[in-house]
Amino acid sequence: MHDCLVNGEIAHSVNAADRGLNYGDGLFETLRVRHGQVRFWQSHMDRLLDGCKRLGIERPDQAVLLREVQTVIAGRPDCVVKIMVTRGTPEAHMARGYAPPAQCPVTRVVSSWALPPGQATTVEGVRNPSDPSHSPAGLRVRLCELRLANQPVLAGIKHLNRLEQVMARAEWDDPGISEGILLDENNFVICGTASNIFVVSSGQLLTPRLDRCGVRGVMRGEILRAFTSRCEQRRISQDMLAEADEVFLCNTVRGVMPVTRIDDRHYQIGPVTKEVREWLDAQ
Amino acid sequence: MHDCLVNGEIAHSVNAADRGLNYGDGLFETLRVRHGQVRFWQSHMDRLLDGCKRLGIERPDQAVLLREVQTVIAGRPDCVVKIMVTRGTPEAHMARGYAPPAQCPVTRVVSSWALPPGQATTVEGVRNPSDPSHSPAGLRVRLCELRLANQPVLAGIKHLNRLEQVMARAEWDDPGISEGILLDENNFVICGTASNIFVVSSGQLLTPRLDRCGVRGVMRGEILRAFTSRCEQRRISQDMLAEADEVFLCNTVRGVMPVTRIDDRHYQIGPVTKEVREWLDAQ
Repeated sequence: MHDCLVNGEIAHSVNAADRGLNYGDGLFETLRVRHGQVRFWQSHMDRLLDGCKRLGIERPDQAVLLREVQTVIAGRPDCVVKIMVTRGTPEAHMARGYAPPAQCPVTRVVSSWALPPGQATTVEGVRNPSDPSHSPAGLRVRLCELRLANQPVLAGIKHLNRLEQVMARAEWDDPGISEGILLDENNFVICGTASNIFVVSSGQLLTPRLDRCGVRGVMRGEILRAFTSRCEQRRISQDMLAEADEVFLCNTVRGVMPVTRIDDRHYQIGPVTKEVREWLDAQ
Repeated sequence: MHDCLVNGEIAHSVNAADRGLNYGDGLFETLRVRHGQVRFWQSHMDRLLDGCKRLGIERPDQAVLLREVQTVIAGRPDCVVKIMVTRGTPEAHMARGYAPPAQCPVTRVVSSWALPPGQATTVEGVRNPSDPSHSPAGLRVRLCELRLANQPVLAGIKHLNRLEQVMARAEWDDPGISEGILLDENNFVICGTASNIFVVSSGQLLTPRLDRCGVRGVMRGEILRAFTSRCEQRRISQDMLAEADEVFLCNTVRGVMPVTRIDDRHYQIGPVTKEVREWLDAQ
């Protein structure tokens, strides 16, 4: 972590009674900064504010958040920013218990971070040949054992309850495997542990519906908007994944990441994936 | 909050990069202190250490935790203690991402709290007639709309991902309603938002199996042990709840709480519930 602001003040800690820590009662966004610009700012804000509405958390002021982001990225033209917004720290006399306090200002935590390896100058995931997980040959990934639970009340939003992702990511430690693909309890394909997934079939871009579980990623949303006539959100079975012409993962930090191997099955980096990457490069 | 120790030091805050805050990657226990004694200490520790094992979190030293609890309850013979144990604050260079860091000492947060209303001298839930939710007539509760998701990887343990409980508790603000009962997605009865449930039928004590969702409460475990020959863990349908002879809720802070009303259905405080309460009073 480089710099961190908590409610606008330089700080590296949060009250131990904060509901974010006690219950995961909050939301987060992870943003990519390139050439000093925050990419897809408004899409991140839209998702964050939608999450606040869904959880009944007071909406933070966008202009205040933007000012805080600009503070933590000063002098760092290429970095990652993480924003957390929690339901806040209740007053002492009612600080315990699940009931959301009536009056409780949200807690804002805004911090900047170094880019992950291989991300120094671009948003694509394949530029650093010294990093096996980001070789030009595309990503090797695996299917996770853990099945995501169906919870429509929380589906789609980027909340702080991330133990499923932690437990799924803990299933492997082979550095040659870049990501794990998660299925739901009905064995439909949902997402990666920290990415969304697109499957290309007969030229169509298919991506899972996220009404029961998963996070509606900002990069996923941008691709859906840019390629709307060729995109479909639908249930995707394991068979459809196996028979796909192309598969790629995406998130705002790593961009569009072609998948060339899922467990023992191999895929080509095809023309549709290349087209999506070229579109992203031009943004 | 009265006193708080973070990793043994007097403090009221936790590092903003802590995995407990960022992912809910940790566990907690809520303990009742009566006459200066921590009730059911070993059962709380057993559940906490089981949770650490399930999540792959380093086990904290029990003796250290007990010393910290004794510090925060000094001079407070009747109070509640909350222990949180998180996977810790990773070192700066690898602080982001779901993968559990290889080397990462756990974070311990131990704090003491005032008892909830009506709990000043006993562990039962019905002693303060001025509090409508704890009247001698028993508790009025409701069925929640939210359905708990099935997630066997996390079921039973008391982890920090509690948004389901927060959202369920946010469904009502009538102070006359003390608790909400949660069903799973198959409409089986599971628990209260902050309690376990027992249903008495033909003299048998029935309590839900918690292999898919819910928390294995310490008080539930003590009752199962004390009344083992008359207890059964099983799936409990809404019909079984409706037709029950008696219903009670339990947790370590409020003890055994007879239910006299679930939405518009009324129940008597029957002999089995009274027997369980008398057993608990004698502990």
